[in-house]
Amino acid sequence: MTQRTVYVNGDYVAERDATVSIFDRGFMLADGVYEVSSVLDGKLIDFPGHMGRLKRSAAALEIALPWDEETLLAIHRELIRRNALDEGMVYLQLTRGSAGDRDFHYPDADTQPTLVLFTQAKPLVDARSGREGIRVATQPDWRWARRDIKTVQLLYPAMAKMAAKAAGADDAWLVEDGMVTEGASNNVWMLTHDATLVTRELSSAILPGITRAAVMTLAEALSLQLEERAFSVEEAQQARECFVTSASSFVTPVIAIDGVSVGDGHPGEVAQRLRAAYIEVSRRRAL
Amino acid sequence: MTQRTVYVNGDYVAERDATVSIFDRGFMLADGVYEVSSVLDGKLIDFPGHMGRLKRSAAALEIALPWDEETLLAIHRELIRRNALDEGMVYLQLTRGSAGDRDFHYPDADTQPTLVLFTQAKPLVDARSGREGIRVATQPDWRWARRDIKTVQLLYPAMAKMAAKAAGADDAWLVEDGMVTEGASNNVWMLTHDATLVTRELSSAILPGITRAAVMTLAEALSLQLEERAFSVEEAQQARECFVTSASSFVTPVIAIDGVSVGDGHPGEVAQRLRAAYIEVSRRRAL
Repeated sequence: MTQRTVYVNGDYVAERDATVSIFDRGFMLADGVYEVSSVLDGKLIDFPGHMGRLKRSAAALEIALPWDEETLLAIHRELIRRNALDEGMVYLQLTRGSAGDRDFHYPDADTQPTLVLFTQAKPLVDARSGREGIRVATQPDWRWARRDIKTVQLLYPAMAKMAAKAAGADDAWLVEDGMVTEGASNNVWMLTHDATLVTRELSSAILPGITRAAVMTLAEALSLQLEERAFSVEEAQQARECFVTSASSFVTPVIAIDGVSVGDGHPGEVAQRLRAAYIEVSRRRAL
Repeated sequence: MTQRTVYVNGDYVAERDATVSIFDRGFMLADGVYEVSSVLDGKLIDFPGHMGRLKRSAAALEIALPWDEETLLAIHRELIRRNALDEGMVYLQLTRGSAGDRDFHYPDADTQPTLVLFTQAKPLVDARSGREGIRVATQPDWRWARRDIKTVQLLYPAMAKMAAKAAGADDAWLVEDGMVTEGASNNVWMLTHDATLVTRELSSAILPGITRAAVMTLAEALSLQLEERAFSVEEAQQARECFVTSASSFVTPVIAIDGVSVGDGHPGEVAQRLRAAYIEVSRRRAL
């Protein structure tokens, strides 16, 4: 198998040689943040949005980010070039680095943060989930309270996805106090019978999705009525359509929730229109 | 500086060469658990308790643990020997390993988990915090819902400790619904004015402390009245004594909570007695 070239702290190395210290705070304390940018036709989608959120995540945790957006763009592009990536994702992880030992307290401010990037080739536009929609199973939202920061504390989303899979579903929706917060790795939407598009308002309960923001803009351009509020599982099950948004799944129809079909059990028309529009606009604006 | 010898996946290596793949699920998804065992006179304290909890943590997350307790004891002892450790800790981290790429879903069951251990030399018996007590500051408990599993999702405890430090305190106590759950890295206790020792009951809200269990047994042997229940910050501030327990801090008096002195503002008598008794019994039973 061909080895990917990945980026680790300034070096482009074969993936088998891509390592970090066991004392890295990302490994020992989950003290890190990440971003995933999608690639179409070898170009980056919503890149300024992802880098803007990376800056906010790092600032919220007081993790240094001594690389400007131009430098980060150059690293992303170099990885795309070296791996001849046409369609897929670039994953970026930033951690607080290593002070050479384990200590809860943050190390000195001059400790070099760890920066890791790698590519993943994957069909995104013609993904089966996009064409056929996905079935989701609900799980209690047991994550920490600051879900607006995109940290690598992803054990619970992984557990929820495994529980959803065991229940015969494709993905998990997380529920807190009777209301859906978000999917295990995406934002949730529904279209009501009076044609209003609803997605949960931003707060510390959910991630401020970059694709979520882009789809809101598109919805306005398509003259769709938009409302930002939480909704229950029952409301979503009885909605006209449901879908999720994320950087790598774009807009993906949800056709069943806990075994209950949404609408007629097929991908909704508005979800399909928004998916097509998102892909078209993204291709045009890709960097 | 002398390099420690550390253990990484079967090898004893110099700490500067101790690395894991960037694709390790511990680094990318916080998909791992850990234990810290203390060492006195070159011997391990409460070792069966720590290994029992490790097994429970791994089982709760379906992480394989293909090493028996005897093998794990041999690795701990070899590290103590190679590093001539007299007093301090041995840290052990187990992760779900790496399937060579990033994916929320657990990899195949035959994926080798990652096992990392290293020593930390530190005075424990004559620690200043044990002699003089510590001041704590309360912080909201923003961690995930399964705190009974000892995972490496330690970003929030780190943030809480930094916030406590910024508030002029030595450590943080975490508070949920008005009640203290636990310290950022220890269990919490108070002694009421009618001489009852109170510590929070076990549930998914707190870690089942190995030292907590040992101190409960000691308290019974010392004929102290014991009650397992949650208590509020105000109740703790007005208590006769407060203290915390953990593997590396043993029993450590708490002399102030959010700037309010506990008792007369000095280490309590019962805390000191329990600390001395714990150290004495531990030395005797160490492996």
